[in-house]
Amino acid sequence: MRYLSAGESHGPALTVVIDGFPSNVTIRKEKIDEQLRRRQQGYGRGYRQQIESDEVQVTSGIRFGKTLGTPITLVVQNRDFKNWSEKMAPFGDKPENLREIYRPRPGHADLAGAIKYDHEDIRNVLERASARNTATLVAAGALARQLLEHFGIQVAAHVVELCDVKAAQFPDTLEELEARANASPVRCADEAAAEQMMARIDEAKAAGDTVGGIFEVIVRGCPIGLGSYAQPDRKLDGRLAAALMSIQAIKGVEIGLGFEAARRMGSKVHDPILYSGTRYVRSHNGAGGLEGGVTNGEDIVIRAAMKPISTLYNPLPSVNMKTKEVEPAAIERSDICALPAASVVGENVVAWVIADAFLEKFAGDSLEQIEDAFQAYQARVSQR
Amino acid sequence: MRYLSAGESHGPALTVVIDGFPSNVTIRKEKIDEQLRRRQQGYGRGYRQQIESDEVQVTSGIRFGKTLGTPITLVVQNRDFKNWSEKMAPFGDKPENLREIYRPRPGHADLAGAIKYDHEDIRNVLERASARNTATLVAAGALARQLLEHFGIQVAAHVVELCDVKAAQFPDTLEELEARANASPVRCADEAAAEQMMARIDEAKAAGDTVGGIFEVIVRGCPIGLGSYAQPDRKLDGRLAAALMSIQAIKGVEIGLGFEAARRMGSKVHDPILYSGTRYVRSHNGAGGLEGGVTNGEDIVIRAAMKPISTLYNPLPSVNMKTKEVEPAAIERSDICALPAASVVGENVVAWVIADAFLEKFAGDSLEQIEDAFQAYQARVSQR
Amino acid sequence: MRYLSAGESHGPALTVVIDGFPSNVTIRKEKIDEQLRRRQQGYGRGYRQQIESDEVQVTSGIRFGKTLGTPITLVVQNRDFKNWSEKMAPFGDKPENLREIYRPRPGHADLAGAIKYDHEDIRNVLERASARNTATLVAAGALARQLLEHFGIQVAAHVVELCDVKAAQFPDTLEELEARANASPVRCADEAAAEQMMARIDEAKAAGDTVGGIFEVIVRGCPIGLGSYAQPDRKLDGRLAAALMSIQAIKGVEIGLGFEAARRMGSKVHDPILYSGTRYVRSHNGAGGLEGGVTNGEDIVIRAAMKPISTLYNPLPSVNMKTKEVEPAAIERSDICALPAASVVGENVVAWVIADAFLEKFAGDSLEQIEDAFQAYQARVSQR
Amino acid sequence: MRYLSAGESHGPALTVVIDGFPSNVTIRKEKIDEQLRRRQQGYGRGYRQQIESDEVQVTSGIRFGKTLGTPITLVVQNRDFKNWSEKMAPFGDKPENLREIYRPRPGHADLAGAIKYDHEDIRNVLERASARNTATLVAAGALARQLLEHFGIQVAAHVVELCDVKAAQFPDTLEELEARANASPVRCADEAAAEQMMARIDEAKAAGDTVGGIFEVIVRGCPIGLGSYAQPDRKLDGRLAAALMSIQAIKGVEIGLGFEAARRMGSKVHDPILYSGTRYVRSHNGAGGLEGGVTNGEDIVIRAAMKPISTLYNPLPSVNMKTKEVEPAAIERSDICALPAASVVGENVVAWVIADAFLEKFAGDSLEQIEDAFQAYQARVSQR
Repeated sequence: MRYLSAGESHGPALTVVIDGFPSNVTIRKEKIDEQLRRRQQGYGRGYRQQIESDEVQVTSGIRFGKTLGTPITLVVQNRDFKNWSEKMAPFGDKPENLREIYRPRPGHADLAGAIKYDHEDIRNVLERASARNTATLVAAGALARQLLEHFGIQVAAHVVELCDVKAAQFPDTLEELEARANASPVRCADEAAAEQMMARIDEAKAAGDTVGGIFEVIVRGCPIGLGSYAQPDRKLDGRLAAALMSIQAIKGVEIGLGFEAARRMGSKVHDPILYSGTRYVRSHNGAGGLEGGVTNGEDIVIRAAMKPISTLYNPLPSVNMKTKEVEPAAIERSDICALPAASVVGENVVAWVIADAFLEKFAGDSLEQIEDAFQAYQARVSQR
Repeated sequence: MRYLSAGESHGPALTVVIDGFPSNVTIRKEKIDEQLRRRQQGYGRGYRQQIESDEVQVTSGIRFGKTLGTPITLVVQNRDFKNWSEKMAPFGDKPENLREIYRPRPGHADLAGAIKYDHEDIRNVLERASARNTATLVAAGALARQLLEHFGIQVAAHVVELCDVKAAQFPDTLEELEARANASPVRCADEAAAEQMMARIDEAKAAGDTVGGIFEVIVRGCPIGLGSYAQPDRKLDGRLAAALMSIQAIKGVEIGLGFEAARRMGSKVHDPILYSGTRYVRSHNGAGGLEGGVTNGEDIVIRAAMKPISTLYNPLPSVNMKTKEVEPAAIERSDICALPAASVVGENVVAWVIADAFLEKFAGDSLEQIEDAFQAYQARVSQR
Repeated sequence: MRYLSAGESHGPALTVVIDGFPSNVTIRKEKIDEQLRRRQQGYGRGYRQQIESDEVQVTSGIRFGKTLGTPITLVVQNRDFKNWSEKMAPFGDKPENLREIYRPRPGHADLAGAIKYDHEDIRNVLERASARNTATLVAAGALARQLLEHFGIQVAAHVVELCDVKAAQFPDTLEELEARANASPVRCADEAAAEQMMARIDEAKAAGDTVGGIFEVIVRGCPIGLGSYAQPDRKLDGRLAAALMSIQAIKGVEIGLGFEAARRMGSKVHDPILYSGTRYVRSHNGAGGLEGGVTNGEDIVIRAAMKPISTLYNPLPSVNMKTKEVEPAAIERSDICALPAASVVGENVVAWVIADAFLEKFAGDSLEQIEDAFQAYQARVSQR
Repeated sequence: MRYLSAGESHGPALTVVIDGFPSNVTIRKEKIDEQLRRRQQGYGRGYRQQIESDEVQVTSGIRFGKTLGTPITLVVQNRDFKNWSEKMAPFGDKPENLREIYRPRPGHADLAGAIKYDHEDIRNVLERASARNTATLVAAGALARQLLEHFGIQVAAHVVELCDVKAAQFPDTLEELEARANASPVRCADEAAAEQMMARIDEAKAAGDTVGGIFEVIVRGCPIGLGSYAQPDRKLDGRLAAALMSIQAIKGVEIGLGFEAARRMGSKVHDPILYSGTRYVRSHNGAGGLEGGVTNGEDIVIRAAMKPISTLYNPLPSVNMKTKEVEPAAIERSDICALPAASVVGENVVAWVIADAFLEKFAGDSLEQIEDAFQAYQARVSQR
């Protein structure tokens, strides 16, 4: 599978074209819209998420609720475009009163992007660099997980740290974890911590400041053998790291014990191998489901660190690129905290990568063919 | 640029073919061999590194010390192959007395790989999954950095944590940092910490255990504008994360403040923008040189967490895949600690990614053409 | 550059997302619409081309008539979708009276596609396999040629054979050739031949039959050095052949003398090299502008053979895939001859490939940067 | 699958690294060497083919005659390198008496390559642009066909035209065709035509001239459904055209009726569909096995036109690039006719593309897994 996403934050629409998705997979539009909705929620979001409600339009590749095996086009209209149609017009003259942006925001692509692409108006940069584009990634991921679900693969995410507040209590089951995260305004399964997290968001808001944090994505039910150690760019850990690090504001990624693994002796890190009578099992999962860049049948566990939102209502010093005068950075409508949303993005981005690796192993143009290949492989696995 | 690497750890040779490297770049073989040598060193390495001394052979793409613009083949012979020529023969029958491996080592690709590729003898997995292949990545990176050097881009790495020991003192200049790291048996610039690190390695060795740690790679001198926010897979932070996470035993990657950024308020994370009179500068570098997936002209700072080596001389429990009996994991000749080597691999892998992004921006089939494009761009940058 | 195209022939819309197009290129919407219009014309087209008039919508990547360097989304609405909205609905139930297609048409993807993707209703195949998708290729090519024009590179096409009628008279200049082709209902520059060609179309129509033919694409003004012999997949001749052969109904491609080159002695094929005082020139152009897979500065000349349209109003025998009974092939609304349109598609597809190769050599994120690189290279070329 | 090939014609060795080849495929070295040998034969070859005899070395990816699923490195030593070790040395100084080449040969990459890569000595171009590299393509193809053979897919080629001589008589069976082609010094199955072809080669040789011609590749036994119409770059016809057109000296490619299809009415081109009782069959094969870019179960038939060798012993006019004086083109050791060899290259290049498309459809990391997927699909096909 491959995709190309497109769209400016205040342009007419976001679009993603997906090529290589198999035929005959049942797709429910509501499941895509549900993911889009989850991405728009969370404590600490700004005004935009309240006025807009994203919805997917499918303009190719699906007929009567089943995929055709042909490229799938997912479109998310920017409902606010009616207020931007002159300022973001594809053709025609610049409006006379256009407010251009010359003061790059620290932490954003503004400065580097304006120089790279030779733009005077930084809006030409920030419109695309904006996390708004994650709506396309969520839509693509929401499609991918409908394929994964068919094969019993689940993906969930929850917030584990927000600023200096750490979640400490975790439920025993993935279902419970997911339920609690979904019920929490900060997508944190530890209710007490969640309260403190919201307090921290309130403090940041009061100070014109912002906060980030850490979320964790869990994938359950992957067959053994996705990814490969044969060539560096085929390692699944590297591919997952790339996908998560490419989400706006992510500055760190770790798998399983992650950085903690570096601080322990090997005997406290690696997961002894046992045999249950029907399959190989582990007494713990320090590897986070990946050994040698390949899934080992345990849960994939991966965490991402999100820096605080870069747009501060109490802005940091910047420079006017026209005049070179020191001025405060520009303010673009923004959130105080987008960590809960980022966890939803992370979930869906991971779903995409897993589905992609799944299709590499089981190929198949139709769901039927994939099903055959998958069952045959699982039968072989059970013999080992 | 693209490459394909190949080779089993005890096969005849490791090979990497590099396509898209420009013509007329001066390449010194000694500089490649120097990187290969650095990769083999470090306190805590096993026997193999003492008996072998890697050296590159160039069988295409370079003539009289200059690149031709055609694919470059770098070969590293496995000098120990003479002892493995029967056990690893490409053709012919299996030797009668061949010792096959059935007990997968926790932490390695052994179990997942044997099932994925349907191998009985786990040697068929571990030979390729082995970190031995990093020699090809180092050779490719050593080539890339000779291009980068021409454009004033430096890459350095040092160890910042080893097991529970943290380096605390860092020199003021990159040159000094590099010199001290190169002089240290654990590639750590803090001498006092280095002593403790070596003690920890000795303890692990005595216990039949292993240790990992964290290294940091720094890239200085990158032009503004490498990478892009236009499409997720073009973000340079994601590409760097993938490259580092794909190195054997790496379980975490962070850029700039990394996970620490998630724990601070935004005003303590983002880097105010100033103008020096000739260029934009920052008062600090929390972003680690990357904003929006694009280089911003500051040092790129990226850290990777390495888990301890998976092969324990005091092995963890495993299962004999033939009999399903619980047995201790197999022992394959290995190191107690390969962190210093991993930092050299990281350095060279990062150099490759940077050179690749550099060539995307400045293209050019010949060094002369790249030089023209680079100078013209830098002249434009100085006007912004 | 890369693109993904999408869309069913009677679905809501066709979409193409283009990634990697540089910033600051002036794009005129009329120039894209002009190419779309040209694709819909030509003697021998069916009813659909008369009722629909394609027009591009840009939903990303362009602002105030200039590219942003971000992905460009081009959408062509299917105006006839209002009549197909139930039959081609992405979601919801199949209409009760849906006419499904079970009789594959010889020459189409129908049979192979239905089996490959496990579809019962052949409409699920033909909607995407349809040449309707060439509208996206034309739109993408129309964008590419606006970049090429900036650098003085022209692309033109004309029909040289239609069924058994060959054009014999060609004007001396490319401008005249283009003008005459544009003025001809069969896009043939030889007026007498054009008359005969139209007669042949009329005959085919009367017989419920179809015709194809051969068109030629000419690219003038390419710099020396696009493409590469370094790796097979970088050869520009191979890439052009792939692009043309991938157009619906194309069964042959030749460059320069093409098949005729195979029938002559070498001394009658290869083009002697002369020096004009300012540049290398050739006394003829048997190579068609490409030697070793690289542009040599002469016109690129490439021809493609189009088979007759596969849908016959007097249908060939087929088999009902439900019943296995012999029945005449299905009839889908179609043209008698689409060769003139195919020549326009070929023109634009070639423009895309050339622009892609151009950007590989001159890279650059902005038009300004490309301009610098191009001028510097041309200055070097003039010294050789 | 993917590969990167490398190597200069007179460098130490040619190398190809192949990634993505499945595990547990039995590979016989003799079968690779046999293809290499076939590539070196044919009436009209020069001195080099007589003194060298290519042989493959496998330095990774195969153990005890079975693939490991890891990258496979195939090396072909240039036995003549001993005479070129100073002139083609990767490192060290240029020999004082080095004969550099300044007179580009019409028809070769010489001129365009020297300018593109900024080389003074044209040897830096011709060494890689040389058809010598086809040895790597043949070796890779020879590997691919051992996979195809396992699934009953055969690939054969024969010469159908040489200069102005056309083969007229063809045997009825593929086996007979192959046997006769293999027995013929010009790889032509029509013995009478073969005699004339050899005469034409003798005439060319006497005149210091060269000849080319046309060969045909046939693939029998492909399952229905390789390739796809979903996206232009996935069409198998386009991919085959690219692969063949990228072979040195190929200037035209056609599939099935090819250019002839353009000259007939549709009813004389398309292949009626019948049902045999067990499968769909055709009364003829004008489509050459590909409809909509997808295999339809009939033989794939594809022809390529080779121009005459560009190096003429009676050289065409050229220009000394140092002095700009008109001088005869340089002479590099060469053949009079390499068409028989090209047909072998074509055969193997086609085998690679087919195997690649096969693995896309049946994926699978191991032969066992592919076998499962293939059998399950064929069972489904038999129900349609």
